[in-house]
Amino acid sequence: MRHFYFKKDTLYVLDQRFLPHKEIWVKCKNYRDVADIIKKMVVRGAPLIGVVAGYGVYLGAKEGKFYQAYKELKNTRPTAKNLFFALERMRKVYEEKKDVLSVLKEAKKIEEEDRILCNKIGEFGEKLIKKNFKVLTHCNAGSLATAGIGTALGVIRKAKKKIKMVWVDETRPYLQGSRLTAWELEKEKIPYKIICDNMAGFLMRKGEVDCVIVGADRIARNGDTANKIGTYSLSVLAKYHKIPFYVAAPYSTFDLKLKDGSEIPIEERSEKEVKEIQGKKITPIKAKVFNPAFDVTPHNLITAIITEKGIIRNPDKSKICKFYKKMAK
Amino acid sequence: MRHFYFKKDTLYVLDQRFLPHKEIWVKCKNYRDVADIIKKMVVRGAPLIGVVAGYGVYLGAKEGKFYQAYKELKNTRPTAKNLFFALERMRKVYEEKKDVLSVLKEAKKIEEEDRILCNKIGEFGEKLIKKNFKVLTHCNAGSLATAGIGTALGVIRKAKKKIKMVWVDETRPYLQGSRLTAWELEKEKIPYKIICDNMAGFLMRKGEVDCVIVGADRIARNGDTANKIGTYSLSVLAKYHKIPFYVAAPYSTFDLKLKDGSEIPIEERSEKEVKEIQGKKITPIKAKVFNPAFDVTPHNLITAIITEKGIIRNPDKSKICKFYKKMAK
Repeated sequence: MRHFYFKKDTLYVLDQRFLPHKEIWVKCKNYRDVADIIKKMVVRGAPLIGVVAGYGVYLGAKEGKFYQAYKELKNTRPTAKNLFFALERMRKVYEEKKDVLSVLKEAKKIEEEDRILCNKIGEFGEKLIKKNFKVLTHCNAGSLATAGIGTALGVIRKAKKKIKMVWVDETRPYLQGSRLTAWELEKEKIPYKIICDNMAGFLMRKGEVDCVIVGADRIARNGDTANKIGTYSLSVLAKYHKIPFYVAAPYSTFDLKLKDGSEIPIEERSEKEVKEIQGKKITPIKAKVFNPAFDVTPHNLITAIITEKGIIRNPDKSKICKFYKKMAK
Repeated sequence: MRHFYFKKDTLYVLDQRFLPHKEIWVKCKNYRDVADIIKKMVVRGAPLIGVVAGYGVYLGAKEGKFYQAYKELKNTRPTAKNLFFALERMRKVYEEKKDVLSVLKEAKKIEEEDRILCNKIGEFGEKLIKKNFKVLTHCNAGSLATAGIGTALGVIRKAKKKIKMVWVDETRPYLQGSRLTAWELEKEKIPYKIICDNMAGFLMRKGEVDCVIVGADRIARNGDTANKIGTYSLSVLAKYHKIPFYVAAPYSTFDLKLKDGSEIPIEERSEKEVKEIQGKKITPIKAKVFNPAFDVTPHNLITAIITEKGIIRNPDKSKICKFYKKMAK
């Protein structure tokens, strides 16, 4: 499923705000366009943000504005580590080579690597899924969030034959679950049902959930993990019901500079995302809203982190640091 | 806030499906109309369903179709006990008096009682709220769900001066929180913010929730409580964060025939409620959906049940039975 591509110095992306009903493509001809599509969530998903930012920086370099592009892209969204990871890689290459073509090559490399990483995460994660498993996922950590088959959905795709049901949290306010994950699973013919986010506990209590798998936006060095708002509540519910809780993420998600999750910046987004759904106002006009886009799941609630180099069980500082060295190779 | 009234053998109700943006009144001239508005959730809220069903039965009796009305109203919605409670009261009076005016009198009595009960629940519950409390509520257990000031919102109204913030779960899929509870709090000038249902855990972890208060649709004799879907998840989150979890409900909510919550029938509603929001399709057209309207919170996760005769702390079978006798007097 191709949802973005870079051709003749133009980045084309499928506008995820209009899925699943309209497939509208957006063209980005310069770094400002790329910054804009990240801010407005035309594209989203931590790994994908990193990939498109790479092309954005290249477009900036091409017009002689590498640092402006770097800076503007850096300020688009604060939480996903993959964005800063990609930008730092681009900067390093630019400063070493001072050559626009090398910068483009690096952007393509980031994309290609992400594709391969997803496959590997899927292969490792697949081993955790047993026959007839009912899996619950939150948000969209699928193709649409990456350059490949996805992280959490990568695992689900690789384990397809063993999966009896995917419970898809609709994931308010942006509805990544009911709009995007459902769309991907529909195309893959993997059995799924959409639920409202507040129904997960009910299903767990009924014994209808064998494991939870989610993606990640940033992982601190002790394993605390920022992911889409609602992930933390799910991790507490999973713990209470003794259900394994898995995070699937590539090494570009880890931020070893951060001691723990309290240091991860949490983006707050516009009230409008909660007050309106597809332009329909649902709350009183003057209503006040709180709209954090992410939350942090502490490492002790995570059964394992699934990476492209293997699985980190009961993640903590020493395990993460050891693994990260292995991953970064 | 008048949102329904009975006048000249007609029941007028404010159509809650269009709140907060449109105030459309619906007229019910016979019991079929009343059954219809309950089924379609033109009116909702366990106590209110009981009250309007009372008038519905009277309208049936008036056209000589008491039992048809009784039966049709009984089949509108399965979970809220208050509906069956009201219907049984109406039946008893009808069979004793065989007199249409007595039936009308009973319907009015149910309404008037509910108004008084709400006040008493509010007065008892108010004592549980301390200065500067931040309270989280789910769904709408307010005026719009009762004939009075509400149950959970009755407590909040009576404790108004002590409340620093009400966190209002938007309450998917029907959005009773962001549409109805927010509307009531806006009118009362009580400070509130709407959140998506998946944000409650995040707030609890930040220490931003001092207690949770919800209403109830049916309470089994051991204290297990059915309420709007999502209540159970909240109760687990509250337990994990050591936050008191209160249920506010009048005696008409108790169902002593039921040993525990597993015997409470849980209504499943149309997929459309999840797939569309105000007519806007949000999921893939062919998407499958699971849409239970209620869940059951086990009594051990409930700190106290607030009734019109006082507070039942750590509710269990013996305490409930003792209290119920007191309440029924």
